[in-house]
Amino acid sequence: MSAPIATDVLVIGAGPVGLFQAFQLGLQDIRCHIVDSLPHPGGQCTELYGDKPIYDIPGLPRCTGKELIERLQTQVKPFAPVFHGGHSVSHLAPHADGFAVATAQGLNFQARSVVMAAGVGAFEPRRLAPEAFKALHGQQVFFAGQDPAVFAGLHCLVVGGDASAIEAALQLCDLPGPAAPTRVGLMHRRDVWDAEPALVERMRQCVARGQMQLLIGQPLGPQLQDGRMHAVDWVNSAGETHTLPCDAVWVQLGLSPQLGALAQWGMDMQRKQLVVDSATLATSLPGVFAVGDINTYPGKQKLIVCGFHEATLAAFAIAARMRPGERTTLQYTTTSTHLHRLLGVDGR
Amino acid sequence: MSAPIATDVLVIGAGPVGLFQAFQLGLQDIRCHIVDSLPHPGGQCTELYGDKPIYDIPGLPRCTGKELIERLQTQVKPFAPVFHGGHSVSHLAPHADGFAVATAQGLNFQARSVVMAAGVGAFEPRRLAPEAFKALHGQQVFFAGQDPAVFAGLHCLVVGGDASAIEAALQLCDLPGPAAPTRVGLMHRRDVWDAEPALVERMRQCVARGQMQLLIGQPLGPQLQDGRMHAVDWVNSAGETHTLPCDAVWVQLGLSPQLGALAQWGMDMQRKQLVVDSATLATSLPGVFAVGDINTYPGKQKLIVCGFHEATLAAFAIAARMRPGERTTLQYTTTSTHLHRLLGVDGR
Repeated sequence: MSAPIATDVLVIGAGPVGLFQAFQLGLQDIRCHIVDSLPHPGGQCTELYGDKPIYDIPGLPRCTGKELIERLQTQVKPFAPVFHGGHSVSHLAPHADGFAVATAQGLNFQARSVVMAAGVGAFEPRRLAPEAFKALHGQQVFFAGQDPAVFAGLHCLVVGGDASAIEAALQLCDLPGPAAPTRVGLMHRRDVWDAEPALVERMRQCVARGQMQLLIGQPLGPQLQDGRMHAVDWVNSAGETHTLPCDAVWVQLGLSPQLGALAQWGMDMQRKQLVVDSATLATSLPGVFAVGDINTYPGKQKLIVCGFHEATLAAFAIAARMRPGERTTLQYTTTSTHLHRLLGVDGR
Repeated sequence: MSAPIATDVLVIGAGPVGLFQAFQLGLQDIRCHIVDSLPHPGGQCTELYGDKPIYDIPGLPRCTGKELIERLQTQVKPFAPVFHGGHSVSHLAPHADGFAVATAQGLNFQARSVVMAAGVGAFEPRRLAPEAFKALHGQQVFFAGQDPAVFAGLHCLVVGGDASAIEAALQLCDLPGPAAPTRVGLMHRRDVWDAEPALVERMRQCVARGQMQLLIGQPLGPQLQDGRMHAVDWVNSAGETHTLPCDAVWVQLGLSPQLGALAQWGMDMQRKQLVVDSATLATSLPGVFAVGDINTYPGKQKLIVCGFHEATLAAFAIAARMRPGERTTLQYTTTSTHLHRLLGVDGR
């Protein structure tokens, strides 16, 4: 376990609202760290609609998810929030005058305040539906990001129907000599692929050459012997069940958001949303705030423009909490030399 | 009195929040008219910091007031709100299933809902401090926008210290033959001018040639005979009082925001702000909503980003009010073909 990182504020989630949270904290002269389960900032904006236009960001008549994130990253730059990608928060508990927060990947924080900007939850690889595969996670069932060295000499099955799935299967077929799997299968529920035609064609040629086995159907469960999987039962599109010898499954079903651990930290929730005071964005756990799609309050709409406002009010509430007795006066970035100094601009 | 203009929603104020209000109403498939006391959209953004950068609009790391307004005008274009510039709302009263609204300049509206997006109030010309001048407004005391023909053959005094004041005085000096005033004076409280040096120099040359009289001091009040002003008493910077023959004063003291009539419509107010429900932005007068700097609710911050959020929630509340029983579901501009149709885009 690493030594805890001390920070005034830990922001959980680096989507548009988490990034603007760091910006608004910066205007209050408060620094923060940001963690996100994805390796890069962006959240839903980049995962779900990176190249699709958004039309309702005020002042940006048309802007893709990726472009919005780039713009927000430029805006927050003067305040240099420290970003920790690929970290899912697994533990949060009151500690000293703040919170001890840990990630499943081994980072520890000691934060005076925490802002949940976690959107629809942490993006995690979508799992195989049959529960029996779960016990094999990390042993014989693997997900995106896996080093393919683990598949050497094994009967492998890739499950999925998008470009990542096809690329994973082709990658396995291309592994040289001793690193190569004994056999490579690609299973998808129907023979329709969410990928460029050229990539699909490469896959079909690989199948035609006998290097890859194509299976149209769905996995039903593992066949185990002494706790180890040696085959997978599966059902084809006609409803017929089959058994495929298999030592390792590489799941390529995309990402799905998971609320995960936060549901267990004792904060008031309503329909999987954190209940907040709309004046401060405070949750029922003093010192923990929630902004963006993860919160709820009277009138709440799950829109980015609303999250921006919430991050603004949360920053004022956090400043008031950190500096009790000091009056937090509103200053304008257009006229305040104090804010110009913080932003590193001259206001002209 | 003109026939009333019927509209679903009348938005009072065409600053950034009023413009985004029209956009959010458009996404709800609701059309609106917008009135503003200024001849052009923009409000404080263009009047107070048109060329100054704003740094805290989300996704716009640096953006002048004018640029923000241009961007919002582009964004709202698909919904073609009808803009009425140069109109100050003077009257608002419940009428039929909505409100009768009139402007001081003679426009009448019949609106089902009204959104006050009036910021710090209507921008009106700043008046001379001595109350005694008020009775002469429009008779012998005039403001910006006045046709200079009225000054022909008169002893004229321009009061003010910025570029508009100097330009007004120079304009009077340049009037030809019969249109020219008998004498032109320019009065400012100190010999420091808020104008380009070249313009100040032109004024000084005019004074040196004896075409313009420069007076450093402030007006105290009019000298009247039978209700008509024939001279102005004034005090110079040394505190000595003088009398200047004068038939007409052209006041050029800039604009100042006035809450004006809205304070008298019986809505709950707190420190000159309209009290609203933060879930709906409804004022205490059912059917009248308030967004932006003019409203207050717990946690309120007078920031443009907050006004954008408020306009969004107000649009949902207005839609729910106009279509009772119909469920207002949240749709996203990224994915909704219904919103794409309203916006006139293809979503790609």
